[in-house]
Amino acid sequence: MTTDEKALKLHEELNGKLSTEAKCHVNSREDLSLAYTPGVAEPCRKIAANREDVYKFTWKANTVAVVSDGSAVLGLGNIGPEAAMPVMEGKAVLFKEFGGVNAVPICLDTQDTDEIIDTVIRIAPGFGGINLEDISAPRCFEIESKLKERLDIPVFHDDQHGTAIVVLAGIINALKVVGKNKENCKVVINGDGSAGIAICKLLLNYGFKDVTICGLYGILSKDIEVLNWAQKEMAEVTNLSRMNGKLADALVGADIFVGVSAPNMVTAEMVQTMNTDAIMFAMANPVPEIMPDVAKAAGARVVGTGRSDFPNQVNNVVAFPGIFKGALEGRAKQITEDMKLAAALAIASLVPDEELNEENILPEAFNPIVADVVSQAVKDNI
Amino acid sequence: MTTDEKALKLHEELNGKLSTEAKCHVNSREDLSLAYTPGVAEPCRKIAANREDVYKFTWKANTVAVVSDGSAVLGLGNIGPEAAMPVMEGKAVLFKEFGGVNAVPICLDTQDTDEIIDTVIRIAPGFGGINLEDISAPRCFEIESKLKERLDIPVFHDDQHGTAIVVLAGIINALKVVGKNKENCKVVINGDGSAGIAICKLLLNYGFKDVTICGLYGILSKDIEVLNWAQKEMAEVTNLSRMNGKLADALVGADIFVGVSAPNMVTAEMVQTMNTDAIMFAMANPVPEIMPDVAKAAGARVVGTGRSDFPNQVNNVVAFPGIFKGALEGRAKQITEDMKLAAALAIASLVPDEELNEENILPEAFNPIVADVVSQAVKDNI
Repeated sequence: MTTDEKALKLHEELNGKLSTEAKCHVNSREDLSLAYTPGVAEPCRKIAANREDVYKFTWKANTVAVVSDGSAVLGLGNIGPEAAMPVMEGKAVLFKEFGGVNAVPICLDTQDTDEIIDTVIRIAPGFGGINLEDISAPRCFEIESKLKERLDIPVFHDDQHGTAIVVLAGIINALKVVGKNKENCKVVINGDGSAGIAICKLLLNYGFKDVTICGLYGILSKDIEVLNWAQKEMAEVTNLSRMNGKLADALVGADIFVGVSAPNMVTAEMVQTMNTDAIMFAMANPVPEIMPDVAKAAGARVVGTGRSDFPNQVNNVVAFPGIFKGALEGRAKQITEDMKLAAALAIASLVPDEELNEENILPEAFNPIVADVVSQAVKDNI
Repeated sequence: MTTDEKALKLHEELNGKLSTEAKCHVNSREDLSLAYTPGVAEPCRKIAANREDVYKFTWKANTVAVVSDGSAVLGLGNIGPEAAMPVMEGKAVLFKEFGGVNAVPICLDTQDTDEIIDTVIRIAPGFGGINLEDISAPRCFEIESKLKERLDIPVFHDDQHGTAIVVLAGIINALKVVGKNKENCKVVINGDGSAGIAICKLLLNYGFKDVTICGLYGILSKDIEVLNWAQKEMAEVTNLSRMNGKLADALVGADIFVGVSAPNMVTAEMVQTMNTDAIMFAMANPVPEIMPDVAKAAGARVVGTGRSDFPNQVNNVVAFPGIFKGALEGRAKQITEDMKLAAALAIASLVPDEELNEENILPEAFNPIVADVVSQAVKDNI
């Protein structure tokens, strides 16, 4: 059987990859009187008197909503809320399996920005955090930023920040391997959607100076009028040399390439024009922007992809479970830039210097200490 | 320790009575590729092609949202969404423990009728049913009826219909005990909120002819101008003799009393004015409208309450888990009056005639076959 066939069979057999389970069983009148009426009235009264007690007596302390409108699901596009459910359930499974965090898939029957914001705010009282997922750009930026303003619980768009954090962790270690400094590196990001923009912001916050983003219209620059507001904002702080041109032009002399775009966008010839010891993250799925062997033959020194069958897989699962675990345990009201940088450094630190090499810059997803190390780093930065 | 103290301790120790659990563990790259990317894309594609497949591949098939705005929680009143969480979590626990149904507490940060309706509609794609809970009247009627119109999944306000179904089941058996017929019985309901009105409707649908409701302003009649629209509707179909007066007046000659009101509303003297072999359900919590021993001494023959320490407890837990189990398994688009009547008859049938007596008219909540019997009756009436 192919992976697709096996996955379909698994989904049909399980009929839901997730369940809710009672932590207290109800086998007697006494059980019932404590978990439900009349005993349940007492924690209700406590919370009514002091709203913060909801963290003490309910699952809010350890539960996130995984929210999507189904507008940008995997590589499948705008497939709607029902068809997005297997992904959101899968994400909820990963939250539990990797971070011990309860997660509930919430797929919304609206793609209107304001309606999404209002809906998430209205369901927030019972959740300790909101993980946004597979919402198309630029709506995802406005949704996240307004929710952060209006809610006092962590809100995190994983497609943006999870990806950015793991890419930064990989770059931190790749720079050690090639012996370069962030201050002197020229970075080119291909992809001007949610992930590309978030990666750009985090790299700038980390201390990279020279970043260029390429998109549908080539190099992002202030001269391009059709850009959306989020892309225009990025054009202000990137592309220092005010270049116009295409990806091939941007790559000349570049030290780092980050692809969150489409298959086969980068050729061997383009890699040959990059600086020596080039670092490349070609994360288009399932086919990368350039295959690792081609990139290496053309001179790249460190190559990562989104795939598990090549070295250096960029996998968000090393980030989001630990980030929410830490944010929830530390009762953070937001996930800040400092917390994201700390998470990236923590992930990078999980590959000790003596094990670091061209083919080993990121921790294994199944390393059981990842979530705890990331969680601790996040908590230390609340 | 008192029940309150024990309940508080339990809630603090558990820190959430509910959890989400993965039904497929993720211990290897293969596991990850089936539960999440890339394999998860295949069920997504199937659902995108045929929306009904969401029931085949996701937890929608067996999961309800337990939705409240915290406006009428237990006897505590309008305590808001956070303070309502222990009750909704408890309800979710009962759904799982008694019916095997997954349930997610959703406590809403709004008490605006239209906002509640819109929010529930927007989160509905990932749920197979909506259980409304502890929403004040008359808003709860409009919310339920609009949701039923606009959603193609079962919507059920348990405070109304769960209570009504169990009361009807109790009355069916109590009538057997006292040897009376529904057609000839005079019924008095004290309480003109959500439960009282729902009980009245179900009793009329079952075939009772002569029902009178009493509320804050005495006997509901068309002459009272301050009634809300739901109460006015009831005034049209009840109180056949066009009486004005108080509960004491209504009870003269009554065969059945149903109290969903407040402690100590009924005196021994009032019971003495009722017909012989009176049936009384005094369900105010924790103190009933009249204590069973007082009612019996005054001439009542069958007395039920909401309490587990007296005979004949009216406990919704014998109804809602089986009702949703059946509705979900049968993929019902609504919970109809026929399904409610069938559920009441099924619950009544669980006490065999040879075991039926004044003190045993309802099945034990922990009888393990209750949910299956109710579920089957509901499925047979889809």
